[in-house]
Amino acid sequence: MPTLDLSLSAVDLTRVICDIPSVSDDETVLADAIHDAVSALPHLRVFRDGDTIVARTDQGRAQRVVIAGHIDTVPINGNVPTRDVEIDGQPFIWGRGTVDMKAGVAVQLRLAAELVASRVDITWMWYDHEEVDADRNGLTRLARSNPELFAGDFAILGEPSNGEVEGGCNGNLRVIVRTHGVRAHSARAWIGENAIHAAAPVLSRLAEYRPRELEVDGLVYREGLNAVRIRGGIAGNVIPDLCEVEVNYRFAPSRDLAEAEQHVRDVFAGYDVEIVDAAAGARPGLDSAIAREFLGAVRAEPRPKYGWTDVARFSAMGVPAVNYGPGDPHLAHHDEERVSVAQIEAVERGLREWLSND
Amino acid sequence: MPTLDLSLSAVDLTRVICDIPSVSDDETVLADAIHDAVSALPHLRVFRDGDTIVARTDQGRAQRVVIAGHIDTVPINGNVPTRDVEIDGQPFIWGRGTVDMKAGVAVQLRLAAELVASRVDITWMWYDHEEVDADRNGLTRLARSNPELFAGDFAILGEPSNGEVEGGCNGNLRVIVRTHGVRAHSARAWIGENAIHAAAPVLSRLAEYRPRELEVDGLVYREGLNAVRIRGGIAGNVIPDLCEVEVNYRFAPSRDLAEAEQHVRDVFAGYDVEIVDAAAGARPGLDSAIAREFLGAVRAEPRPKYGWTDVARFSAMGVPAVNYGPGDPHLAHHDEERVSVAQIEAVERGLREWLSND
Repeated sequence: MPTLDLSLSAVDLTRVICDIPSVSDDETVLADAIHDAVSALPHLRVFRDGDTIVARTDQGRAQRVVIAGHIDTVPINGNVPTRDVEIDGQPFIWGRGTVDMKAGVAVQLRLAAELVASRVDITWMWYDHEEVDADRNGLTRLARSNPELFAGDFAILGEPSNGEVEGGCNGNLRVIVRTHGVRAHSARAWIGENAIHAAAPVLSRLAEYRPRELEVDGLVYREGLNAVRIRGGIAGNVIPDLCEVEVNYRFAPSRDLAEAEQHVRDVFAGYDVEIVDAAAGARPGLDSAIAREFLGAVRAEPRPKYGWTDVARFSAMGVPAVNYGPGDPHLAHHDEERVSVAQIEAVERGLREWLSND
Repeated sequence: MPTLDLSLSAVDLTRVICDIPSVSDDETVLADAIHDAVSALPHLRVFRDGDTIVARTDQGRAQRVVIAGHIDTVPINGNVPTRDVEIDGQPFIWGRGTVDMKAGVAVQLRLAAELVASRVDITWMWYDHEEVDADRNGLTRLARSNPELFAGDFAILGEPSNGEVEGGCNGNLRVIVRTHGVRAHSARAWIGENAIHAAAPVLSRLAEYRPRELEVDGLVYREGLNAVRIRGGIAGNVIPDLCEVEVNYRFAPSRDLAEAEQHVRDVFAGYDVEIVDAAAGARPGLDSAIAREFLGAVRAEPRPKYGWTDVARFSAMGVPAVNYGPGDPHLAHHDEERVSVAQIEAVERGLREWLSND
């Protein structure tokens, strides 16, 4: 069973924990190693639920910050173990999980061990099943069983953000737009009505749609409305009576779920629209004093986050939250996933400077 | 094992052979019964290949007519055994196969037994696997192993034609029209290109297409161009890089395969088009003296056949062929499939009058 030496640098810890595979559903070996390592630290109280580990300081500070990272990855594709590579003269660690998001977890583990005292109390969370359905996410489970563990004045998710601070996130809606027809033999098509042909205006509206860019609390969010799946048809000689277009709407956090749903219904007015999945976005959460202190300490300009992340969960629980982690989000899930060593060090330095009790 | 009494009327024989299930792949019981019944008739020479039975008269007539019918049906859906029903005061036999095409086969079996002498020599063919892929069709097999059995001056397929004569058939082409794009996470759609959106003009061209009506040898054929299937998409959060629209073109028999293919390529100019299936149509075949005699004897106005049938196979082998059988083709494959008793009797009478040696 692997053990973790938390006196290693965050860069070295990144290599170690990336080389312990932890694809969703197989996080236990890594979760055990994290649990054992942080349980040995006397300044932390450790709580475990399945493969989610929570470790809290209890210094009696006026404020508490939650710092969280998921420990699972998408499937490995020949890219574990990690390799050191150089790109444009800069060192990178290449391999599955380096970006999404074990470098972020490594920084957190290193600082959890190092920061015996800190200017705020800290709740560290390392959790399972982020890369699969939301109802299997370790934080979903924990929020149900132990919501008190989420208490805090501010939260930081270590999701890759190129070492910048990404505030909030877009909301996410999935709907199915259906067109209907009448089946007939395709040799006598005029007896039927073709449901696939009837979907032509649905695709045209999507192709012509110009997504908005919206400023929310000083950050500009870019929306998107896209067909992600289409299906229809029964056999090669039958006029189809049903066509389904699955549409994904990513919407700025100034719009709530009801408004987002109404917007999609407006776009597809006249069509049968079913909502199949909905997750509200999160406003940037950068207007509190503690958030401004954090931004000043890490010397970062905040940017909008487009993808949905667990910051929305904290936001919904009343805890302002941001993404702050090493790694280029465009390389997440990519077979050439790789993280800049300099970014790992920069995020480690940024968090240390803000959290240190100096 | 069921036996067939070919002294029964065609109407009674329809009930008997519909009540012997013979869904494609399960024709053997019925084929055995047919084989045994016709083998007992001294005026016929019988040949069997798998579940296809050929029975020929050999009277030394100047002309030979091939009369054929498939013995398989599409799957049963609670509609066997048959029932006698009355619609608008008229008697019908209800159940799978009554229309497509066991009533036609029953007429043929009855006349094969009865017509010990006839004005032309007759080659009767009852064959398997018509309702599945063309390469499994009993006639495909037989044309390869014993093409000499197809020799004749005229051919009649007993496919349902409402007791009218349907000449020739439309051709049938299936193509896949593909649109391409670039995958991306749907949270950052602007990095990708949506292949489903790119299919909007493909569906618009289909929706706006006005099919031609073409006169061929005096019959008007109605064409059709239809999407029969569409598929695209990878996951609920991925911009798709491929969309495939499967299109079925039914074209008048005046157009050969190359022209039909070119027409479809013209309609979808600018798109990636792949031909996946192609079957030429058949001209009506009603200009020969023997065809005109047949039309006169059965007192029928010829009509065009829209669906592809095995008449095209005979046509391609140089034997003019028509469809002539009881049953409304709109009810073929229908769960409420049912054949008019009067139509069975009319077709039986029509064929008898023409073929009898009086």
